[in-house]
Order: sequence, then C-alpha cells, then structure tokens
Amino acid sequence: MRNTGVPLLVVDGGGTKCLAMFLGSDRSLLGEGRSDGCNYQTVGETGARESLRQAITQALGQMEVITGNDPETINVECAVFGMAGLDTERDHEVLTRIIRDVLKSERIEANKVIVENDALIALFGAAGGQPSVLVISGTGSIVCGVNELGRYVRSGGWGHVAGDEGSGYWIGTKAVASVFKMLDGRGETTLLGDGILTFLGLENAEDLYNWIYGEAYSVDKVADLSAIVKKCADEGDAVAMSIVEQSAQELFSGVMAVLKELKMVNDPFQLFLQGGVLSHVPEIQTKLMGLLDTAVPGMYQVAADTALEPIDGIISKGFDWLNKHRQEIAKR
Amino acid sequence: MRNTGVPLLVVDGGGTKCLAMFLGSDRSLLGEGRSDGCNYQTVGETGARESLRQAITQALGQMEVITGNDPETINVECAVFGMAGLDTERDHEVLTRIIRDVLKSERIEANKVIVENDALIALFGAAGGQPSVLVISGTGSIVCGVNELGRYVRSGGWGHVAGDEGSGYWIGTKAVASVFKMLDGRGETTLLGDGILTFLGLENAEDLYNWIYGEAYSVDKVADLSAIVKKCADEGDAVAMSIVEQSAQELFSGVMAVLKELKMVNDPFQLFLQGGVLSHVPEIQTKLMGLLDTAVPGMYQVAADTALEPIDGIISKGFDWLNKHRQEIAKR
Repeated sequence: MRNTGVPLLVVDGGGTKCLAMFLGSDRSLLGEGRSDGCNYQTVGETGARESLRQAITQALGQMEVITGNDPETINVECAVFGMAGLDTERDHEVLTRIIRDVLKSERIEANKVIVENDALIALFGAAGGQPSVLVISGTGSIVCGVNELGRYVRSGGWGHVAGDEGSGYWIGTKAVASVFKMLDGRGETTLLGDGILTFLGLENAEDLYNWIYGEAYSVDKVADLSAIVKKCADEGDAVAMSIVEQSAQELFSGVMAVLKELKMVNDPFQLFLQGGVLSHVPEIQTKLMGLLDTAVPGMYQVAADTALEPIDGIISKGFDWLNKHRQEIAKR
Repeated sequence: MRNTGVPLLVVDGGGTKCLAMFLGSDRSLLGEGRSDGCNYQTVGETGARESLRQAITQALGQMEVITGNDPETINVECAVFGMAGLDTERDHEVLTRIIRDVLKSERIEANKVIVENDALIALFGAAGGQPSVLVISGTGSIVCGVNELGRYVRSGGWGHVAGDEGSGYWIGTKAVASVFKMLDGRGETTLLGDGILTFLGLENAEDLYNWIYGEAYSVDKVADLSAIVKKCADEGDAVAMSIVEQSAQELFSGVMAVLKELKMVNDPFQLFLQGGVLSHVPEIQTKLMGLLDTAVPGMYQVAADTALEPIDGIISKGFDWLNKHRQEIAKR
C-alpha cells in the first residue's frame, strides 16, 4: 500500500514545545511526535520549520509502526495547527507558508489546512459553543473571548516589549526594577532584593545588571522570577504584594475589554484560566475573581476543565471541521 | 622625527557617536576624529573597538597634517575615555582591554589611561569642584551627584529592560503600551494612537506589533516617540500628560536618592540637566523643578552651562590629571 488516508493531523505549535498527532475518525491515536518550541517570533522561521518537521516526522514514524504501513504519500482530510506567535495577518501568511513547506517535505497531502492562533484555538476547544472568556498568563499574557454567535475577540497579548501586562515576564521585570530602585536608594526596601539575587546566584545591583544584558538572560528566565514574587508576597512583602495586585488588575482590564467588545457584560459566561502564572500564583486568580465579582456579579462560572491542554482545543477544531464536511468527504 | 609627545588624548565614547581629540597643553586642538556610537553593550566589543579605532585614526591623520609630523609612535601623557555602557567593574575591565588594544594598534603609548562612565565624567566637568547633581534623560536616563568631598554616587541608569525610568525609551514604551490598550479596548482614548501610527507610517495595532518585533525596531526609535508624547501632551491629551508627569516623578526620585546618599538634602547644590528628553520636552524639566522646589526649597540652582558637551567634562578630567602630575611629568 503506497498511499494512506488519515482523517486528522493536529499540531500544537507552542512557544516551549511542539506536539503533533495523527488521529483516526474514532479519535484513536495513530502516531505522536514531540519537539522543541516553534514560535517563529522567537526561534526564527528556520527554527519553527525544523521543530514542526521533527515532531511530524516522529509522529509519522510511530504511525508506520502502529499501522504497519510505510506509504509514499499520506492523505490527510484535515490538518489543524495552533501556533504560538500568530498574531497578525502577516504572521498567518508566514506560518502558512512554513507549514505547507513542511507538509510537502513530509509527503503529506492535506485536503484542508487550518492555521490559527494557539490561544484562540484553545478557547474554541474549551468553549464548546458557549459564551466564554479565556485568560492566559504564562510567560506572556492574553485574554480572548467568544460570544454565542461564535464571534471571537482578543485583548492584550502584544508581546513582552510593550504589552503582555500581568504576565510572568511583566511580573519579572516589575520585580527587577523594584530591586534596582531599592539598591540605588529610589525605592522601598523589599524582600525581592534578596529573593531575586539569591535565586539567580548574584550579589549586587551590578551583577543583576550584567545578568540582564548578558548571555544567560531570556524572556522565559525573567518570567520565572514570578515564583519569587509569589514567595515574597506570601511573606507579606508590600512591593511583591503590589505587583501581584497590579497583575490581577491588568488581566481584569483585559476581561472587561473583551466582555464589552462582545456586548456580554450583562450575560453569563464561562471563565477559563490557563498558564503557569495563574496556576502557580493562585493569589492572582483569587484577586482577578474578586474584581469580576464586583464588576459582573454572578455572571461567570470558572470552568472545571480549565486544565484542558491546548491540543484538546486543536483536536476539537479538527473534528468540528470533519463533522461539518462529512458529506463532502464521503463523496471523495 | 619618529616620536611625538602629546599632552592629552580625550575620547567621548558615546552611545550614538564617538569623538576623539588630541590636545596641546595650551588646550589647542591638534587633531580630531569622529565615528559611530561605541557603547559595547549595544554594538558589541568588535563594534566598539572599530568605532574607537576609526575616530582615533582620523584624529591622528589630522594631527599629522596640522603638526607636519608622521611619527612612528605617539607618546601621550594622559588618555581619558568617557564611555557609554560602562556601568560595572566588569564593563570597566572589558572596555580597558578594548582601549589598550586600540591604542597599541594605533602606535600610541599613554603614560596614564583613564576610563570612566560617560555620565560621571560629564558631571566631573560640569561640577568644577562644587556639590552638584546631574540628571541625564536621553534615550536612557541616569542621575549622578558629587558632594564637596568629591564623593560620587549614581541612581538609575540600569538600561532599557528594567530601568532607565523617565528616559526617552521609557516614555516611548509607555506610549506604545497606551496605544495597544486603547486599540484593544483596555485603555482610554488617546491622541497617541493617531500620533504614533502616523509618525511610523502604520495603520493599526497589528502593524504596530509587527514594527516592534520587526527589523526596523530599535531602542533609539522607541525613544524618538517621546516627541509624539510631547506633542500630544501639548494638545492636552490626558494619557500623554500623565506619561510626562510620571517621567518627571521618576527623575525626581533619582535626584532625591542621590541627595540622600550624599547627605546633601539640606545643602545647596548645582543642578545640571542634560539629554534630548530634557531639552526637547521642557515640561519634564519644569515639573521636575516644581517637585524639587517643594522637596528642597531654595537649595538648588540650575547651572547655566547645562549645555556643556560630554567632551568638555572629559577634557577637564584630563587637564585635572595633568595639573596634579605636573612635577612628575616635568622630570621625565
């Protein structure tokens, strides 16, 4: 058999990992592959292409073992990609081109290719057709929502330079700035000084400066400092507590913007909370919900399946497409 | 004549330009050369070395024409370098090594080499032995001060990632963040939206996002946006006015930290204001002085020669050294 038909290829092209899966129409897993992050904004086009290729090659290899086939070409009904770093029309063009290159080099022919922002596709999977708002705060942050008409909007998520308010990176830079301010006499004393210097194995402001502008620095590592902010806030440090408070305030402002844009301020909605900051700094979750309780009392319900993985949203998107095109597919 | 003696080589190794001068003991200019910025934190060690080399080569060439000499070796009594990007001990080591390499390759033998932070050396030149505070806000920002005992301290100046509060870059990122917040519904309406998009030739938030994470972006270009903030503040825009206000507040907090550290809060001092933001956004100067009038009334005088160039401080430093070592030099 030189040609195999497969219903779905789903790919979670995240910022820190890439996960590819071939699925049967009964949702059975036919093959799975993993590789490194493939946000082309951070790893470049070549890096993203390579990560996608590795994950898909691995999934293909597993599928050959599972199905016993070693086909020349794979026909996929629908290939769905949830991609980090897809924020604009231009990103969509770039990523679609990269993805088509990879599919070609892997001898995969897809009848339909869907390429979407990873947050929006996660929301799609989570929402299940209900009015919903998804708040993500990990290294970056974004809020997106969908109303009962299926209209999607987003707020925030403009990256680490002048956006991503309330995210891990945003919290980390606020913390570092507070430490500099304490050490050079501008700011109040804060446990963040000892906390951050010890965490990074540094001794003083000059070391911290060299770390920030040195090779060890990365956006992810600054985001990791949010763990120190949580620890210091737990110990009652006023500066750390204020950063936690501001983070919740920023995410709240994103939720309200989405509700207003979708004209959902007076309607019930499901609230999904995702990302490392929201799961590891529960104080931010609590404060965010406190702000919502005042602004839209009784209107939201925190969804129980908040722990859904992004790939679940991507799989839902794929089966949604297959269901809608069932007749068309049957005719082929 | 195969060997020429020259009293001074002074070099202003700034972030945007490098200026080198050979000077006679009567302060006569023997040769001058210019090249690009040589902050090694931004242009790298190779870039800094190349800029220094170009400026010094050009100055040497001019000196040969002026003096009619084409010597094999130049003996310089004192070489003084005021360097951008020199903030820590490690920076001092790196820059001293680069500078010694360049001097060697240019066949210059210096009896004394002084390498200092550009802001501190500018303050030295400006202070003239009096208790003084220098506030610089250009692309970056820093406040430094010297008391009557000659003790120097600094506050701020920790770079664009988590410092340089009140600088042009800091103002620019605040402005861009405000535009994103307006465009995605989180923030209030501001003239900065039209102002910044028009200035950059862009149409919407997605364009702005692509600009920030694209090749055209630079810290300097973000700092240029402070001109738009000034314009919008002049037109009464509340968001822009608030950014101007915060900038003055941040610089004020730097001045107070320096005064406290130098125990000069109750003593008169000279205030020097430098940098593009302070000269092009006079509202920040006015607000800063208003805050100081309340905090340390009658204690400061804005120095008239605020417009002194950094090279003037470097020249003062050089002649100061020559004067102190006059006898020693005479014996050689």
